[in-house]
Amino acid sequence: MAGPRHAVITSVKSTRVVAARRLASRAFRSTQRLFLAEGPQAVREAAGEKGLLSELFATADAAERHPEILDAAYVGGAVVSIATDEVVDSLGDTVAGQGIVGVCRFLDQPLASVLERPARLIVLLAHIRDPGNAGSVLRAADAAGADAVLFSGESVDVYNPKVVRTSVGSLFHLPVVTGVDLPEATAALKRRGLRVLAADGSGPADLDDEADSGALASPTCWMFGNEAWGLPETVRALADETVRVPIHGRAESLNLATAAAVCLYASARAQRRSSQ
Amino acid sequence: MAGPRHAVITSVKSTRVVAARRLASRAFRSTQRLFLAEGPQAVREAAGEKGLLSELFATADAAERHPEILDAAYVGGAVVSIATDEVVDSLGDTVAGQGIVGVCRFLDQPLASVLERPARLIVLLAHIRDPGNAGSVLRAADAAGADAVLFSGESVDVYNPKVVRTSVGSLFHLPVVTGVDLPEATAALKRRGLRVLAADGSGPADLDDEADSGALASPTCWMFGNEAWGLPETVRALADETVRVPIHGRAESLNLATAAAVCLYASARAQRRSSQ
Repeated sequence: MAGPRHAVITSVKSTRVVAARRLASRAFRSTQRLFLAEGPQAVREAAGEKGLLSELFATADAAERHPEILDAAYVGGAVVSIATDEVVDSLGDTVAGQGIVGVCRFLDQPLASVLERPARLIVLLAHIRDPGNAGSVLRAADAAGADAVLFSGESVDVYNPKVVRTSVGSLFHLPVVTGVDLPEATAALKRRGLRVLAADGSGPADLDDEADSGALASPTCWMFGNEAWGLPETVRALADETVRVPIHGRAESLNLATAAAVCLYASARAQRRSSQ
Repeated sequence: MAGPRHAVITSVKSTRVVAARRLASRAFRSTQRLFLAEGPQAVREAAGEKGLLSELFATADAAERHPEILDAAYVGGAVVSIATDEVVDSLGDTVAGQGIVGVCRFLDQPLASVLERPARLIVLLAHIRDPGNAGSVLRAADAAGADAVLFSGESVDVYNPKVVRTSVGSLFHLPVVTGVDLPEATAALKRRGLRVLAADGSGPADLDDEADSGALASPTCWMFGNEAWGLPETVRALADETVRVPIHGRAESLNLATAAAVCLYASARAQRRSSQ
């Protein structure tokens, strides 16, 4: 189907491929405001959002398997190339490539656009460094129905291929803001009526007590910190409350993405029950 | 301190080191009923449980940093060796070794021992294959105060180094049963008064409704399936109910460990509120 419409790119040294491959570097992504999305699911999401997909590389097999993705890419104005396995694999971050890689435009929004819309559940990631955690938190935030995810300036690049991959499409689902200044963002969120909660094992407040008291039903911004050292005192001081997930057994802590999911689902439940 | 008491092992070909390194293979672990635990935290846990640590390899630096681990190892009767960085690294699964690796005895218990103790929260993993997920579920189960974690016969080896590492010590904290037969185990758990809940996106029951109805306060066994294909119909049929974590946003699903944490914390909260 798609085959005859295209010259097949066979060289990993072709100009387009070399340019796309450079997007593995954060510096190059920032300059170009482009990033790579790998695999049919991520590329389908990018092709679905008008204008987000700039370029598409697919093997002939993948093009055959996913004609709807190529059609959407054409409609959205992306440059579509059929390429050899070697070429497509050279763009991928994972060993087992899925034959399809997209070059996407940055999708982060200014904080101001998030703030001008009504919101009851916001996630603020402070100094989060591990890409797998960042992607998992994006996915959990999406599942819990969060209105936006904000990343502080010191956080991992949201366009890192591992963040994109572990978010399993969620990067494309909800508004994302990057380079956020924590004092400025928390102050603005509070002015808009959100309670800012810092999730930290040191918290004097217990998540279950917050839920029982009805406090979680209010519009909330959850702030999560670095996996290794949590939220520093100066950041916790920006929150209305520091809340811990109770540890009932002998584990020292929960991992960041797990703790985030438990907190966000506790909020989602409290907010939905109170609005019933 | 520990240095003078030992000859330092300098060769990766030393008999003890070669034997320990073979524990990277599942088949060899099963024959020997021994596995490797890497890093000070895991080895400290193993040394703390009487008789679980069979052997300890530490660099001189690590021995200096963690004298209490070496002391506990001696008291527990483990063979302690000081070795070069190269030797200790050759036993580790991760690139950045932490200078300390233990050879531990298998710690799984028969299903019968778990069944003879009172339990209100049990985790049953059916066909779970990804070691990182298995370790994360162990950690979440421990944090949520679960009484035991059972692995079906078709699951990943609980002694796989990545399971051990991602459980962050929780493998040593709560009773683990391996090679469980699902029909037999679910029948036995039901006879002992536990509700068996299958967690699956297809579930007709919603987790929040289960919590609201008070049903989650009962003693419960949560059954979680394979990340890729969830729980097959034949396995769901063994449960009293199939329950889904509600997806409020556009995510297709939650990852297994995240979904497990949300379910287990919902049960922990319901059980603790009802017993207040």
